[in-house]
Amino acid sequence: MAATPETGADGAGDVAGLLRSLTLEQKVALLDGTDFWRTEAISDADVPSIMLTDGPHGLRKQRTGGDHLGLADSVPATCFPTAAGLAATWNEELLHEVGAALGAECRAEDVAVLLGPGVNMKRSPLCGRNFEYFAEDPLLAGRLAAALVRGVQSRGVGTSVKHFAVNNQETDRLTVSAEVDERTLREIYLPAFEHVVREARPWTVMCSYNRINGVHAAENRWLLTELLREEWGFDGLVVSDWGAVGDRAASLRAGLDLEMPSSGGAGSAVVLAALRAGELDERDVDAAAERVLRLVRRATTELPAADGFDAAEHRALAERAAVESAVLLKNDDDVLPLDPPRTRVAVLGEFARTPRYQGAGSSQVVPTQLDDALGALRGAGFAALEFAPGYEVEAEAADPELIAEAVERAAAAEVAVLFLGLPPSAESEGYDREHLSLPEPQLRLLREVAAVNERVVVVLAGGSVVTVAEWERHAQAVLHGWLPGQAGGRALAALLTGAANPSGRLAETIPVRLAHGPATGAFPGEHGSVRYGEALLIGYRWYDAHELPVSHEFGAGLSYTTFEQSDLAVEVVEDGPDPRVVVSLTVTNTGARAGQEVVQLYVADPRCSVSRPEQELKAFAKVALEPGAETRVVLELDRRAFAFWHTPLGRWVVEGGEFELRAAASSRDVRLTSTIRLAGEPVTDPLTPRSELGAWLDHPVAGELLREALAASPMAELAADPQHAMMLRPFPADRITRFPGVPLTVEQLERWAETANTAQR
Amino acid sequence: MAATPETGADGAGDVAGLLRSLTLEQKVALLDGTDFWRTEAISDADVPSIMLTDGPHGLRKQRTGGDHLGLADSVPATCFPTAAGLAATWNEELLHEVGAALGAECRAEDVAVLLGPGVNMKRSPLCGRNFEYFAEDPLLAGRLAAALVRGVQSRGVGTSVKHFAVNNQETDRLTVSAEVDERTLREIYLPAFEHVVREARPWTVMCSYNRINGVHAAENRWLLTELLREEWGFDGLVVSDWGAVGDRAASLRAGLDLEMPSSGGAGSAVVLAALRAGELDERDVDAAAERVLRLVRRATTELPAADGFDAAEHRALAERAAVESAVLLKNDDDVLPLDPPRTRVAVLGEFARTPRYQGAGSSQVVPTQLDDALGALRGAGFAALEFAPGYEVEAEAADPELIAEAVERAAAAEVAVLFLGLPPSAESEGYDREHLSLPEPQLRLLREVAAVNERVVVVLAGGSVVTVAEWERHAQAVLHGWLPGQAGGRALAALLTGAANPSGRLAETIPVRLAHGPATGAFPGEHGSVRYGEALLIGYRWYDAHELPVSHEFGAGLSYTTFEQSDLAVEVVEDGPDPRVVVSLTVTNTGARAGQEVVQLYVADPRCSVSRPEQELKAFAKVALEPGAETRVVLELDRRAFAFWHTPLGRWVVEGGEFELRAAASSRDVRLTSTIRLAGEPVTDPLTPRSELGAWLDHPVAGELLREALAASPMAELAADPQHAMMLRPFPADRITRFPGVPLTVEQLERWAETANTAQR
Repeated sequence: MAATPETGADGAGDVAGLLRSLTLEQKVALLDGTDFWRTEAISDADVPSIMLTDGPHGLRKQRTGGDHLGLADSVPATCFPTAAGLAATWNEELLHEVGAALGAECRAEDVAVLLGPGVNMKRSPLCGRNFEYFAEDPLLAGRLAAALVRGVQSRGVGTSVKHFAVNNQETDRLTVSAEVDERTLREIYLPAFEHVVREARPWTVMCSYNRINGVHAAENRWLLTELLREEWGFDGLVVSDWGAVGDRAASLRAGLDLEMPSSGGAGSAVVLAALRAGELDERDVDAAAERVLRLVRRATTELPAADGFDAAEHRALAERAAVESAVLLKNDDDVLPLDPPRTRVAVLGEFARTPRYQGAGSSQVVPTQLDDALGALRGAGFAALEFAPGYEVEAEAADPELIAEAVERAAAAEVAVLFLGLPPSAESEGYDREHLSLPEPQLRLLREVAAVNERVVVVLAGGSVVTVAEWERHAQAVLHGWLPGQAGGRALAALLTGAANPSGRLAETIPVRLAHGPATGAFPGEHGSVRYGEALLIGYRWYDAHELPVSHEFGAGLSYTTFEQSDLAVEVVEDGPDPRVVVSLTVTNTGARAGQEVVQLYVADPRCSVSRPEQELKAFAKVALEPGAETRVVLELDRRAFAFWHTPLGRWVVEGGEFELRAAASSRDVRLTSTIRLAGEPVTDPLTPRSELGAWLDHPVAGELLREALAASPMAELAADPQHAMMLRPFPADRITRFPGVPLTVEQLERWAETANTAQR
Repeated sequence: MAATPETGADGAGDVAGLLRSLTLEQKVALLDGTDFWRTEAISDADVPSIMLTDGPHGLRKQRTGGDHLGLADSVPATCFPTAAGLAATWNEELLHEVGAALGAECRAEDVAVLLGPGVNMKRSPLCGRNFEYFAEDPLLAGRLAAALVRGVQSRGVGTSVKHFAVNNQETDRLTVSAEVDERTLREIYLPAFEHVVREARPWTVMCSYNRINGVHAAENRWLLTELLREEWGFDGLVVSDWGAVGDRAASLRAGLDLEMPSSGGAGSAVVLAALRAGELDERDVDAAAERVLRLVRRATTELPAADGFDAAEHRALAERAAVESAVLLKNDDDVLPLDPPRTRVAVLGEFARTPRYQGAGSSQVVPTQLDDALGALRGAGFAALEFAPGYEVEAEAADPELIAEAVERAAAAEVAVLFLGLPPSAESEGYDREHLSLPEPQLRLLREVAAVNERVVVVLAGGSVVTVAEWERHAQAVLHGWLPGQAGGRALAALLTGAANPSGRLAETIPVRLAHGPATGAFPGEHGSVRYGEALLIGYRWYDAHELPVSHEFGAGLSYTTFEQSDLAVEVVEDGPDPRVVVSLTVTNTGARAGQEVVQLYVADPRCSVSRPEQELKAFAKVALEPGAETRVVLELDRRAFAFWHTPLGRWVVEGGEFELRAAASSRDVRLTSTIRLAGEPVTDPLTPRSELGAWLDHPVAGELLREALAASPMAELAADPQHAMMLRPFPADRITRFPGVPLTVEQLERWAETANTAQR
């Protein structure tokens, strides 16, 4: 891994001096873009303009003369699978490679910052932009995104982790307020950002459009300054999502450094007026301008050489990424892989020749080359291969002639491979999906093909889940390719024919039906706000807690070979409030083909003072094994693997007790378990005069104080009677101040509460 | 129905004069109890002490000398089914009769106010006190409770509707804060109270222990004064739940008139001190004291005669109520009713001879007589009847000998009737349940009996639901008797032998499993608060929205006869913002026995600007029909049947559009539907400068203003291009003030928003 260029002490001093040399107006000008994609240059101070541009899975650098909405044609670039596919690889090394390739392409095009990756959680499969996001699990999303960020930045190109934060829908995305409790923010919606920021040190973070508990992200000082910088130690720049700035002065105070795209001077005018009115401090301007200058320096000095890139090499990497993205959901009777020389195949479905390989919106790439599966399969040496499109991609009604033709081909073949999926209009930046079904013309095609051919293989395209419960019985095999990028066609052909072995695992649950899910009735919200009532329970956390069946669970995915997990060993290396646990196990390829297994480690905390998910992914590893080979996998768990966010204390807490470690092949395919006991730390809620008397009596500090004070009162006697004590324990402590003869006041309880809480903090 | 005694103009004047004659200390003294159950008397002003006592389904008047925790032995009284059973009758007339009987018993014992009914919603079946509450549906609970209140008060005895409000669990009940959004409060947790207050005018309302969105009910001025008195027009007295008062001055300011039980002078001392300190106004004291005096007058003047009561008559009424409470859940092959002269029966289960007929806690009644089912069945003339207890009620492990004996009896009989249910320790005031299962010894008994006898009838006892999915296949018939009160044994025997025909309907869903339900992961909360994240979706609203199977749905219940619904007619009598709709249909008894059908009318609003439950119960009627007879049922729907609570507008709104009316035999057995279109009223969210530009442009008032202002600006052109207009619509309106050449400020938008919102209010 190439080293990430760092701004050294010299660089910092340099920037400080530069900052001092600028006029106020120059500094303010730095806080706004100069056009749609570039920062402001200050020519007399040798501050060049740098370019930030889309997008997460391929460069979208608009050609000169692009429209000012930013949607015009862009230079060709390698289109990798979108994040939904990359996540299904569960392969951090691969993500690093993809990142490095993206970085190289940016360098070649003189792009300083790539606007991605997007690490928002998949709260609902309806979110129109889920194809750009990784997972329903924050650990998986954070780990993979961090690898991608490290990869990009290893080439001297910055990233912009987005959309910070809690941007989980497209409906009303510029105005909606996500109403989320703090623990849910901390445990579900923020950890992927936190991990990337702490571990991969992205050059920039992009704030989101939406509001969080009423406050626009762009104006959210808690989010952009207290949490991001002061708590997580972020030392980069915060850029607005394009058009996210409303009140420029408020956003600057909150910690938003750079407004994009250019406001045409409006932002500077507001900032200067606010400075004059005393509503902004010049130090706010200095801090933000310094961060812009540091970013420019990072992007223009001490960079690795911009060697250009080998498009063929990147295409090959894109194919490898697409191969690892694909998830084999079903493979009855080992119908896959196909054996081309011995197989007469019908390749059906428009998507076989017109691939759906990326999503719509700001991330749309012009690929360097585009492979379709039909072409790749034609080159695979099948005994016979016939094609029929079967449906029109965006048609709402089935075309009987297209179906009849496809059925005829299917009837004449030994295997029918159907390419189905979501039409482009079904998912996009800018709006949400309305259902999870495949289009009816495709389902009808499937039913009619299945009626004439018993060996049906469905290959799915789409950046998000579709329900399969209503049709999966018609297919012997189902392979989900997501949006596999420009080389997806070749990748899918390789997987179908056994040239490659599927190793993707689901990064999001495929539910039996949409209505079963967590956001039912609360997506996309109303009156400009959306209630995250399910709190921690998104994705598999929800289906597990509600004991609901799913079509395919988080972490699931088949292979052409089989794996065994054995010899689980667990060592508690550190105990106490900051535990460290090392888990190891052996994985063996027990089948006849080389393949990759994803070992998943879930942690369960069955007894806790707060309600916790049934289990949570806390570590994983992907291992490649030749047939018969075995390897030892070692996974490390730190305190965060066991901690929960204790809202009243405002910090992470490892509560002592038993934890179950589950080594698994999926979230519902646990292979080995081990229970450990951790000392953790004692956890006591802060007391108030209205806390339960029982909580007061049980508190190590306050209990003592209270018992002493009551010793000489009638309460001493009362408390000595176990039945009365039981009756009194649920009462708020302040009630006892009203008992005759009790020498206590509410004010006294307040003082003791403070003493007790300070002792426990 | 006897008229409720009202305080006339004279009475009011009388009370006002009396109030003026009292000293401040006397007035303050009136605001506190004088002992556990009685108000303070003021002998020199001829203000007697009156008694308020438990409980909802039978009088619990403690004998003199009772302990001061209020749990000592009480005088005998008729024990009716608890609210869970009464709710299953769906019979308002019957509840009125039960209320009148309760009132008569209170008058006979000189009790002025009966502390009930409890109309809290069944958010989770785990709530330990659900047996005292009616339903998971606010309309059903409100209608039935209002009938009961009218019945009690028709005898010159007051009621205390409780526990106001959002008291849906026993865990931490004195400290927990129910975190609920306003629409959910208005549509789910408050309507039963609202209906009772508006329609039945209870003499008192009892505030609950818990907090609501952070504020204790006892100190919640919004709840006790703004909502209850100012909005709903409540003119009675608010009493604390026993021990709910913390800060007496704060509770008085909030509108809590009477503290119970006596604080021993502590409350008065606090009030007097607060008056001296200027923290309370004497008018607060006067208002509360006047309400106490009015209550005392109501309870002591112009009352119907206290004739005593006929215990046998009340026992018969209790039996009738128990008969109508029972819900026949399953009856394969018409195994019920039994034909005693031709049947050798094994009666099994300790509950057959030791009935579980009421719940534990403040509502526990000493019955005037107690019938057990075994005795009643012995008198029913069976060809043979053998009994075996089969299990010990509170045993955790099965007793093999008891089981062997029961199995032997079962093997020798033609039918085995098993009395199963929740042991008393499973549900009580004061703590919540931990699961929904029957005790394992009972399940084992059932399995073993089912192995030797194919005709097994299970009779359930319990104040709340138990899951049946794991065992129901072992029974041919299942009859749920709830907690049927003192005459439950006779009632169940009458139902089993066909002397009576089951007519109860579920007032709460029986889920397949607990985890499927709405409160999973969010009950009973943590850190002193509980998140009502499921919002509107409790009970059938949840299972419908999530498309989940249930074991037995809300509204379900079988009969020994069959009914048909036909000829649905719907008339929109009034349209507009205050619609009135009259629905009528014919119900025919198509079977061979007399019986009762419950016609249920659900309303669905499939397209609405806010998310609504799939359907909601809006009217019902219970009709008795001889075999072959038919009747026309007429149901009226007012605006509340169609309205939702519009949170930003702060009022109920009927949004125009289509509504589907569903006449049904249960929430999942819809028999007839009709779709109507109501004009309603146009609904627009209030605008702010950050509302979406699209919402501004679409607003009838603001759109005009905005378009005019932009006419001469570059935005006019931009807005004329449809693609650009679509791109801009999602942006907050304040963004356009930053466009060059746009003659608008945020302040201007604020002014227009106010103009527009005022026009729409």
